Amino acid sequence: MSSPANTARLLISCPDRPGIVAAVSQFLYQHGANILDSRQHSTDPHGGTFFMRMVFHLNGLDLSRPQFEKAFGAVAQTFQMTWRVAYADQLKRMAILVSRYDHCLLELLWRWRSGEFAVDIPLVVSNHPDLRELTELFGLTYLHLPLSPERKAEQEAELLAQLAGRVDFIVLARYMQLLSPAFVARYPQQIINIHHSFLPAFVGASPYQQAYARGVKLIGATAHYVTDTLDDGPIIEQDVTRVSHRHTIRDLVQLGREIERTVLARAVAAHLEDRVLVFENKTVVF
Amino acid sequence: MSSPANTARLLISCPDRPGIVAAVSQFLYQHGANILDSRQHSTDPHGGTFFMRMVFHLNGLDLSRPQFEKAFGAVAQTFQMTWRVAYADQLKRMAILVSRYDHCLLELLWRWRSGEFAVDIPLVVSNHPDLRELTELFGLTYLHLPLSPERKAEQEAELLAQLAGRVDFIVLARYMQLLSPAFVARYPQQIINIHHSFLPAFVGASPYQQAYARGVKLIGATAHYVTDTLDDGPIIEQDVTRVSHRHTIRDLVQLGREIERTVLARAVAAHLEDRVLVFENKTVVF
Amino acid sequence: MSSPANTARLLISCPDRPGIVAAVSQFLYQHGANILDSRQHSTDPHGGTFFMRMVFHLNGLDLSRPQFEKAFGAVAQTFQMTWRVAYADQLKRMAILVSRYDHCLLELLWRWRSGEFAVDIPLVVSNHPDLRELTELFGLTYLHLPLSPERKAEQEAELLAQLAGRVDFIVLARYMQLLSPAFVARYPQQIINIHHSFLPAFVGASPYQQAYARGVKLIGATAHYVTDTLDDGPIIEQDVTRVSHRHTIRDLVQLGREIERTVLARAVAAHLEDRVLVFENKTVVF
Amino acid sequence: MSSPANTARLLISCPDRPGIVAAVSQFLYQHGANILDSRQHSTDPHGGTFFMRMVFHLNGLDLSRPQFEKAFGAVAQTFQMTWRVAYADQLKRMAILVSRYDHCLLELLWRWRSGEFAVDIPLVVSNHPDLRELTELFGLTYLHLPLSPERKAEQEAELLAQLAGRVDFIVLARYMQLLSPAFVARYPQQIINIHHSFLPAFVGASPYQQAYARGVKLIGATAHYVTDTLDDGPIIEQDVTRVSHRHTIRDLVQLGREIERTVLARAVAAHLEDRVLVFENKTVVF
Repeated sequence: MSSPANTARLLISCPDRPGIVAAVSQFLYQHGANILDSRQHSTDPHGGTFFMRMVFHLNGLDLSRPQFEKAFGAVAQTFQMTWRVAYADQLKRMAILVSRYDHCLLELLWRWRSGEFAVDIPLVVSNHPDLRELTELFGLTYLHLPLSPERKAEQEAELLAQLAGRVDFIVLARYMQLLSPAFVARYPQQIINIHHSFLPAFVGASPYQQAYARGVKLIGATAHYVTDTLDDGPIIEQDVTRVSHRHTIRDLVQLGREIERTVLARAVAAHLEDRVLVFENKTVVF
Repeated sequence: MSSPANTARLLISCPDRPGIVAAVSQFLYQHGANILDSRQHSTDPHGGTFFMRMVFHLNGLDLSRPQFEKAFGAVAQTFQMTWRVAYADQLKRMAILVSRYDHCLLELLWRWRSGEFAVDIPLVVSNHPDLRELTELFGLTYLHLPLSPERKAEQEAELLAQLAGRVDFIVLARYMQLLSPAFVARYPQQIINIHHSFLPAFVGASPYQQAYARGVKLIGATAHYVTDTLDDGPIIEQDVTRVSHRHTIRDLVQLGREIERTVLARAVAAHLEDRVLVFENKTVVF
Repeated sequence: MSSPANTARLLISCPDRPGIVAAVSQFLYQHGANILDSRQHSTDPHGGTFFMRMVFHLNGLDLSRPQFEKAFGAVAQTFQMTWRVAYADQLKRMAILVSRYDHCLLELLWRWRSGEFAVDIPLVVSNHPDLRELTELFGLTYLHLPLSPERKAEQEAELLAQLAGRVDFIVLARYMQLLSPAFVARYPQQIINIHHSFLPAFVGASPYQQAYARGVKLIGATAHYVTDTLDDGPIIEQDVTRVSHRHTIRDLVQLGREIERTVLARAVAAHLEDRVLVFENKTVVF
Repeated sequence: MSSPANTARLLISCPDRPGIVAAVSQFLYQHGANILDSRQHSTDPHGGTFFMRMVFHLNGLDLSRPQFEKAFGAVAQTFQMTWRVAYADQLKRMAILVSRYDHCLLELLWRWRSGEFAVDIPLVVSNHPDLRELTELFGLTYLHLPLSPERKAEQEAELLAQLAGRVDFIVLARYMQLLSPAFVARYPQQIINIHHSFLPAFVGASPYQQAYARGVKLIGATAHYVTDTLDDGPIIEQDVTRVSHRHTIRDLVQLGREIERTVLARAVAAHLEDRVLVFENKTVVF
């Protein structure tokens, strides 16, 4: 469901009221922008919030991109829209933060190299040196920023400096470190984390141990945007797999890796294709 | 995702070209029809087919239903649309055809009684007397039309006569009898069958025996519109469940019942909510 | 995977040590009991707990059932076994407790009537009159024990009196009432509850509202044995289904019904076939 | 569910009759072999075939491995057993055959490096040069054996020569070439193929195109042992994923890659752990 090169995606949220679809589609039609795909959602048609994602061709557009955005701004104002437009040919820039686990990193790198992810990866950052070789095999830059309790703030400052201006969003591919509220505030709804449980079950540390102790019959993983509250941000994607009494904690960890990487990859794909809108700590994933 | 009472659903398919969404949404807006939900699909933006389903409120509509349909007809003509409009308060009328298996029938009746299905059920028809009691418990009419090889044509004629003018569509809830091409032609894309395999695997008779013999690790069920070719009509819904060497054919039959009734119920729900469009022997399910 | 009529199931748990399988299978062989199916599990081969379930034919057994049990008691003592034997031809007796929701009740009754459940159902009990008709349609006894805050203890006493000697285990098919610790103590690991969430997420009241508020992408259901701690007993079975922003709370409730009844039915089947062993607030489900 | 290092796995199939479990477990107990896990299956207790897999510790074994095998041979003869024993510390040797697709190869290599697969990989063979770099990054040997219509037989002879004595089994990780009956006969039940459909649906070439044309709502993958009949060998593992009208053939290919690699990895794991027994062109997977 990825969109072709010469297309743009328009994302809108605004108070619901009659005429929004008509106004937007009329505007696009008048300017030669042929709609390829359109999805909308209303939380409540009476006084709720309206969300829309439209993919359109740029071929016939009679305006330059800045002109288009300026002209659409006028329409948007009428409806008090929060909106953004993204162009398929302007790749998003993604930083990947990892610790020592390689499965999520490898999954992202493979999806990138195989062409599934249209993304630039300016750098991979880790508090450990372990995954340098793997990263460099894919021809990417690996930045090792060691961590110690006494220099946590410094390390984060260094990290921020390295990312500034180079990336649009950040993926925590089992990074295993908490980010400070100040850091999170710099990338609102732009940090994707993979948590190795079916949230809100098993928040916090050692979810597989928790799952084993509780004797659940399914284990899961959750990809979500990071907020200031641990494991509480808007959920983008979740999935589960079946387990039984036969599985040791080590087996759960191993089975969990399959789910973690798949769930994370789907969430990153949705983010890259501008299919995610956030509201009230939840997501609309078109 | 069922739609509220005072709403209508507009279904459109036409050659793809710019301006369709704008024209339709503009028309609805002008006549006070507030759009609640909208989905579209293009097989190919250049010369392909365009499909759209729009749900809108009737509250503010400034035309009567016949006037609305007439006025929209003019828009539709411009775009060479095949279209229909359905009103949530006009219940579809469904006949259920069964043989001796009760699980699919019970599922449909329960969904109807619990309010999940907004539908009228004028009659349940069977070539066996077995399910009369169950049907009548739900306060519905049971028609027993016995079958024998020599009077197959007569029985079908009788069936057609009984259905004529009383039902809009037909569900074969494990009916186990082939319908003649003439019968099928009377209800194009209006006969839903449940086949007890993951089509196109195991077409025809005894799919569970076939599945057992082949040693598959998943068994499935398929709901599809009936066409003249056996088990070959447009697929509406499918699902599977895991099996292993531990399962006998009897176990497969039993496990299969769960999938059959769920898959059939989902297909009927999609049909009732006018979420299915057919093209090239396939379906778009919005 | 249900076992034929003339068979017995032997369930064992004991401290793990060499020679258990040899001793039990030797004993069965010597007495003409041909093993049909055997499953075992060790939490830890060094000092852990050993669990085993053996299904064997009674045809060739050279002892009466009481003699067999007495003779096996000697073997069991050697290994400090906790054990029980169940005979496929001695149907378990199940009480079903319901409130007003019919979906779980209907599922259980249908599985019973269709022959999937080998069980007797001496009575269905409810604190509401609503499901009497449905129950009696299946030819079963419905007992209405109204509840009010001031006579909760009395009602439970009445319930206990009605169940005493008539049932072996109890299924809470969306009963919606807490049972007192005294009640639970009378039926240890013999009360099965269906909770409408993927535990341990969303313990307690209104799990679908909780799930909606959290914005999860999957909802689930959990069947577990009832203990004194709310929604915390040993989990027998769980499953989930996918949801999205398109689903209202009403949709979640509706989708949830499908999962609830399936999960409950699977848990009851496992209990009926003596496939469940409990340890450390968890289950082994063979 | 992988077994610890100092263990062995005993696999048995034989005509079913009383006393098998007793004889085998007695034999193991007498020789100090503590059973860790045991599974059995009977196709039919009266005159059917009996299958068993037992995992036992070697720590307390009072015989050398050759002595053990010789002694067990006597027991086996009594029951006309086909049997084998495998030792967890004797790694199987796996050749991987690939064409140009990297996803299945990468999956296998990652599972090997991460320790999930206890296996030796003496060589990766391909009819294309494309995956040399990837293979060598993992420190493995890549053998490029180009293919052309006129020298197909020669290439296969070369391949056979390269494999002879170096590998125990072969994985076709999307190899895309048919092997001759003579080749297959050299590795009976030792060649695992991944077919990119839910067999028996869409046998042969271009299954995703076939699936797209038929309009199925699920696509799948199947891992099976290779026999002389195309895509007809005993199925080891299958799985599916949901698709819709929104997915192009390219999307199906992409989604299919996820299922293919997972299904293949599970099948290889089962083979490595000696959990698969073949009978009547089907498998028992313990």
